[in-house]
Amino acid sequence: MANAIRALAMDAVQQANSGHPGAPMGMAEMAVALWGQHLQHNPGHPQWANRDRFVLSNGHASMILYALLHLTGYDLPMSELRNFRQLHSKTPGHPEHGLTPGVETTTGPLGQGIANAVGMALSEKLLAKEFNRDGHAIVDHHTYVFLGDGCLMEAISHEACALAGAWKLNKLIALYDDNGISIDGKVEPWFIDDTPKRFEAYGWHVIRGIDGHDAAAVSAAIAAAKGLDKPTLICCKTIIGFGAPTKQGKEICHGSPLGDAEIAATRASLGWTAPPFEIPAPIRAQWDARARGAAAEAAWSQRFAAYRAAHPELAAELDRRWRGELPAAFASAAEAYIRQCQEQGESPATRKASQNCLDAYGPLLPELIGGSADLAGSNNTIWKGSRSIAENAAGGNYIHYGVREFAMAAIGNGIALYGGFIHYSATFLVFVDYCRNALRMAALMKQRHIFVLTHDSIGLGEDGPTHQPVEHLAGLRATPNVDTWRPCDAVETAVAWRAAIVRRDGPSALILTRQNLPHQPRSADQVEAIARGGYVLRDCAGTPELILIATGSEVQLAVAAAQQLEAAGRKVRLVSMPCSERFDAQPAEYREAVLPRAVRARLAVEAAQGDCWYKYVGLDGAVIGMTSFGASAPADALMVQFGFTTANVVATAEALLG
Amino acid sequence: MANAIRALAMDAVQQANSGHPGAPMGMAEMAVALWGQHLQHNPGHPQWANRDRFVLSNGHASMILYALLHLTGYDLPMSELRNFRQLHSKTPGHPEHGLTPGVETTTGPLGQGIANAVGMALSEKLLAKEFNRDGHAIVDHHTYVFLGDGCLMEAISHEACALAGAWKLNKLIALYDDNGISIDGKVEPWFIDDTPKRFEAYGWHVIRGIDGHDAAAVSAAIAAAKGLDKPTLICCKTIIGFGAPTKQGKEICHGSPLGDAEIAATRASLGWTAPPFEIPAPIRAQWDARARGAAAEAAWSQRFAAYRAAHPELAAELDRRWRGELPAAFASAAEAYIRQCQEQGESPATRKASQNCLDAYGPLLPELIGGSADLAGSNNTIWKGSRSIAENAAGGNYIHYGVREFAMAAIGNGIALYGGFIHYSATFLVFVDYCRNALRMAALMKQRHIFVLTHDSIGLGEDGPTHQPVEHLAGLRATPNVDTWRPCDAVETAVAWRAAIVRRDGPSALILTRQNLPHQPRSADQVEAIARGGYVLRDCAGTPELILIATGSEVQLAVAAAQQLEAAGRKVRLVSMPCSERFDAQPAEYREAVLPRAVRARLAVEAAQGDCWYKYVGLDGAVIGMTSFGASAPADALMVQFGFTTANVVATAEALLG
Repeated sequence: MANAIRALAMDAVQQANSGHPGAPMGMAEMAVALWGQHLQHNPGHPQWANRDRFVLSNGHASMILYALLHLTGYDLPMSELRNFRQLHSKTPGHPEHGLTPGVETTTGPLGQGIANAVGMALSEKLLAKEFNRDGHAIVDHHTYVFLGDGCLMEAISHEACALAGAWKLNKLIALYDDNGISIDGKVEPWFIDDTPKRFEAYGWHVIRGIDGHDAAAVSAAIAAAKGLDKPTLICCKTIIGFGAPTKQGKEICHGSPLGDAEIAATRASLGWTAPPFEIPAPIRAQWDARARGAAAEAAWSQRFAAYRAAHPELAAELDRRWRGELPAAFASAAEAYIRQCQEQGESPATRKASQNCLDAYGPLLPELIGGSADLAGSNNTIWKGSRSIAENAAGGNYIHYGVREFAMAAIGNGIALYGGFIHYSATFLVFVDYCRNALRMAALMKQRHIFVLTHDSIGLGEDGPTHQPVEHLAGLRATPNVDTWRPCDAVETAVAWRAAIVRRDGPSALILTRQNLPHQPRSADQVEAIARGGYVLRDCAGTPELILIATGSEVQLAVAAAQQLEAAGRKVRLVSMPCSERFDAQPAEYREAVLPRAVRARLAVEAAQGDCWYKYVGLDGAVIGMTSFGASAPADALMVQFGFTTANVVATAEALLG
Repeated sequence: MANAIRALAMDAVQQANSGHPGAPMGMAEMAVALWGQHLQHNPGHPQWANRDRFVLSNGHASMILYALLHLTGYDLPMSELRNFRQLHSKTPGHPEHGLTPGVETTTGPLGQGIANAVGMALSEKLLAKEFNRDGHAIVDHHTYVFLGDGCLMEAISHEACALAGAWKLNKLIALYDDNGISIDGKVEPWFIDDTPKRFEAYGWHVIRGIDGHDAAAVSAAIAAAKGLDKPTLICCKTIIGFGAPTKQGKEICHGSPLGDAEIAATRASLGWTAPPFEIPAPIRAQWDARARGAAAEAAWSQRFAAYRAAHPELAAELDRRWRGELPAAFASAAEAYIRQCQEQGESPATRKASQNCLDAYGPLLPELIGGSADLAGSNNTIWKGSRSIAENAAGGNYIHYGVREFAMAAIGNGIALYGGFIHYSATFLVFVDYCRNALRMAALMKQRHIFVLTHDSIGLGEDGPTHQPVEHLAGLRATPNVDTWRPCDAVETAVAWRAAIVRRDGPSALILTRQNLPHQPRSADQVEAIARGGYVLRDCAGTPELILIATGSEVQLAVAAAQQLEAAGRKVRLVSMPCSERFDAQPAEYREAVLPRAVRARLAVEAAQGDCWYKYVGLDGAVIGMTSFGASAPADALMVQFGFTTANVVATAEALLG
């Protein structure tokens, strides 16, 4: 069975003339043990809710996963394996969730897979606690991970595995492919970690010294890991490229095809006589997991039917959560809350307005879960309904992540992928740097994941330039499939939160202030228009001479400037643009109505690096933005220092008008 | 002595009504032990080359550092402490290198300080190995770090400390402020790491269970740590906010002023009777390190004079290295190499051209040091003169970082700050995400640090969207003080490398292809103009109808399109823009000469998210860029799929021309 994997891996990589044969060949017996003996899954129905989760954290070994999915009976025909790494195939270079049935998460950026798996294992634990009842273990499965040296060197493995230990995620079982080789060669000179000792320091159970090429030994270790009260790391000593006579155990087989001669020699040494992309029927039968999987799901479905009979409302709610649909009452309640915010006209900091949204929307959304990287009080992420998951009671919905931004974001991705939850991750905007690639992965995987990013500019004041974002908005806006909201008051904040919750095909970043922002008056139509991402907040009669565009804390400044310019007889329009991605997605007529092409005197104001605004102001317009890092001082002093004053906006506007 | 720190910390935070009093108060005795008994430094000459380095990794505790600098006699008068966190003060919220004498690195973003310190300790070790001679231990000092729970939770601490262990940095001594409190409260529910065990797993020596409020015990531990063959972690159990009767030991004293009443009660409980910002003369005398420091430096200077007498050439070279000046021969040699590249007209991938630059410039630059995060063969960062630092001989200049991007970049910052080296950090462009904030810190600290970022677009091909950068160029260009170079051929690559080496006030990012790029013909003037960041690579007679702007791998496409358009009778100019930051820094006349304001039909082509190009093409122009993530396929197929074809460039240009 293991050699079937090896043959498919080396043949597919050779055919593509690109890819990583070594790791799949080295982990083949580990796969036989886990997928052959333990994994509860149903190839005919990859979405079965109670399946075990399997994460290939060392995603470059993608061919082992494709081989397993193919061999066990998923809808991944041999033609797809022949098309490894080709355009429009279901077998991309690294496994992509949503593209290939049975791929639980997209991996490749090392270390994030294990963090996703921590999120999945946490989801299982929390969902079980919330929905299981005596005699009805409806949510009850394991999460398995394969990971390699690279994942363990990566920083994020520290954060994620420390949390897994703190949370006692006993149904998380990780198998470490300890082959001692990375791209640069034998890792010994730069990787001397005593990994078992390190994981024991995190509160894991560690099973040492397993021969990774002894499937029975690996299987026994997995069996031993089940039923413990901690997560388990199984250390499997393997040889990379196992079976390749001259290349095994060397970095040369890590990321390049073996070559025809070596492949032939490998076939001979393994006694594998089948031609490329052919699997002998007896071996195919051994691997085929369709009948077993269908039976497993059928048995579970029976148990679920009994659960539904005993607890019909719980079952219906769990169904809804799994489907990812919002409660029926949410839409109208959110609409009413937004209207109420407009009517009440309060002027909090938008981070506080965000907390108010949690208080308003949270009670409607038992699926809402989240946390902050040790900034709960500053990010305002704890709301009235927050209960720590550490309390060990059902209904925990608040996660104290500690100072661990990257793990938070990647664990949040795992929670989103698992389903049944809507996750928010919070930190200061500047520290999105620490979790940047996980946010990207949420976008790439089209996951609903809400990033609450407060302290959004020099307006945070005294903490200084290390804490003041400048370039981050540009970076987020340039990232495909991220909606970046920078609301100007409590009303826009409420719309942004609603949009982030409603959105099902990608993450949203909510960019919020530390400082208070004044309420803006709006008509009902204007309130409605916020969701379009950009709208006319204040207008003149007739065609404007000048258009001001602003977001967040700079809208108040633009309002004051517009008033002065109007007093001086200028015809000024003010566009609030909380979400340029949403605005860009509007029909051309709407965009033209807001920003008429003929009006070229345009001025954008935002306390961030401003080059992205030239898209809207063009060569004849101007941007008042940040052109350097900030400084440590009270916020008001900084705003003056860096030109965010009414006088500067007015003067720049007058200069544009000539 | 400790209470002097406490008083200054609580009074300054109170005066600023902002800041973190708890950690300085908790670490006061640790500071007395280190700064009072061990630290070799000269307050009168903070740049003394052989000083011990001190890094406050938990930078929010900045007041302890300002208090120490003030008390020991640095040029940081009490007026600056009174001005804590105010505009233009030398006492910003977090310590800033370059602003305050004696601040070795800017800290605040947690975990990076310890990584900087690893870089400093490595620098000391390597410089000593290279320059010390029998009887002449010219480079010979320790690197000390204070760090807290937050630094230890952060991912980067894993990477950096694992490397420190692998490198046996025995003169690195870290003191852990183990107070059990972070912003969110008692860390116990989310931070259960057995930190001593973890550090032993990294190959550190760990001294457990020191009472952090017993200065003698801390001092003895530091003494014991000296002379070992490994880095040492000293675990100091402390009480945050020690001395504050009702607030000590609680998160409430972490990040907020204590309040007047609590400060008065603290004064009483500590028996501290001096008014705010006054230090009794006897205590001031105890702290004053000026005479001792001057004597220490004088003794070293004598030793250096003896070294100079014995090894005049070595001493002169070390002087040059410390000054950060390039060898006299570099400028003309680089000029000649660039000319030679133009003449030879080769067409390698720019990653390969980059390696050729290392082979050309490297032999002239013994200060050049660097490495890759386990992608040496892909980043092409090993050149003919590379010798691994692991070989333990003098002259090691190549660092195998393992899969540790963030530590690489932050260690590189530490090496840059230390002086005597020019450091390059290499990974795939997409994985700059993993070290984003360290690159930002290099920019903020104005450090020469060269980032070699290869595999720069969908042009990398089969590895797929997880590995294909899209938004990264926009993010880098939006970051203040980073020069982002995306050269189109070997000649531009050679100019970019020279610019990055010559530049002394900030980092440069070299964005390089995996795929081959054709050589572009140029006149001598055009070769000269590359350094301006943008220049006319190909022109028409008279005023152009259309300007094409392109970078990197898309320049060849723009050239082909220009040829077709010219053949169709269009007057086309082609601007190559390898570094928009350099171009923006040119005089207005130059920029107008390259991009005449009157020509509005402009088309930018770059295989990345393109919004940043509207700054140059305006509302009447167009951008051919990426509007989604990439895909896994051979590069040529992807270029077609995403519109990077001559036909598309020509069609878009024709549409602009109407």
